[in-house]
Amino acid sequence: MPHIEIPSGLPGITGLLESRLDTSESIRELTQFILRGPSSLTEGERELIASIVCDGNECQFCTRAHTTTAARYVGSMDLVRSIIDNPLASPLHPRISRLLVIASAVRASPRGVSQELIDDARRVGATDVEIHDTVLIAALFCMYNRYVDGLASVCPDDDAYFETLADRLSTQGYVRKGLANATH
Amino acid sequence: MPHIEIPSGLPGITGLLESRLDTSESIRELTQFILRGPSSLTEGERELIASIVCDGNECQFCTRAHTTTAARYVGSMDLVRSIIDNPLASPLHPRISRLLVIASAVRASPRGVSQELIDDARRVGATDVEIHDTVLIAALFCMYNRYVDGLASVCPDDDAYFETLADRLSTQGYVRKGLANATH
Repeated sequence: MPHIEIPSGLPGITGLLESRLDTSESIRELTQFILRGPSSLTEGERELIASIVCDGNECQFCTRAHTTTAARYVGSMDLVRSIIDNPLASPLHPRISRLLVIASAVRASPRGVSQELIDDARRVGATDVEIHDTVLIAALFCMYNRYVDGLASVCPDDDAYFETLADRLSTQGYVRKGLANATH
Repeated sequence: MPHIEIPSGLPGITGLLESRLDTSESIRELTQFILRGPSSLTEGERELIASIVCDGNECQFCTRAHTTTAARYVGSMDLVRSIIDNPLASPLHPRISRLLVIASAVRASPRGVSQELIDDARRVGATDVEIHDTVLIAALFCMYNRYVDGLASVCPDDDAYFETLADRLSTQGYVRKGLANATH
């Protein structure tokens, strides 16, 4: 049971955002921009950054939401799982593998990003903007995970819920438009 | 030295926000709303919530910025320091003391807010909205601290910098207006 009443009755972050439209508009805008806006990181790569952070923070709702969404881009949930379990062994370009390592370091500790991790990422082609966006996405999901689990939001236990959510996140992104009549 | 080039040349979060106006607008909006918008928590109480999180995360820039700002509201830096070191022993209303404990729990772990902490806060009058806003502010500063220190932003070492910043944050809040010609 959530720690506070969720007027919308919806689960996870969706319930929180729909219950507080005054704060949620800017949260949605930031998320839409950084995860779906113009970037040399693909949408799938950015969903992997979100996934590795949510998984490390053990936020069940966010992990299922973003891994399911990432799977739409990279091909399968098994591949997503193997990437976030060991990014450096992944079949991805080393640039995103190294950025995933940076994202994990941001998650683990606010001061966890060493110069060495930055140098490793630069050596395989990561740019300033990609490093910036990786750190900001990782930081953003540290906020989301604490918002969702800090208020003990409900997490549905059926895969179908998250498949429907991933449909929306991979096609419409994080904007609210069209959400009013949805249950996800 | 920051991990990436900061085109604005400004320190701390200010440099990051000014260097990326595309992502900073929604970050500023959320912060302005949750820290300065209508609330039964005073602006000073909300700055204390920010302060206890930044201090716990050992983010030097953010801690100095928000403790200096909080001191404008509660009276002195010594009092701010004693409150964030031991909120339950503070001379504040027990409601904010208990909310500060919740903020610390959010910071320490995404799943750190126990039912007991919520019950303790409710017993001394904390409302659903106050609990929501405390968790969201704490989560937001977990994002800020990781953004600032994850990119190794510069922290000025003079008190005067933070006094000028606190002047602005306690009178103008977190909006960008008027910032273009400022150095803080």
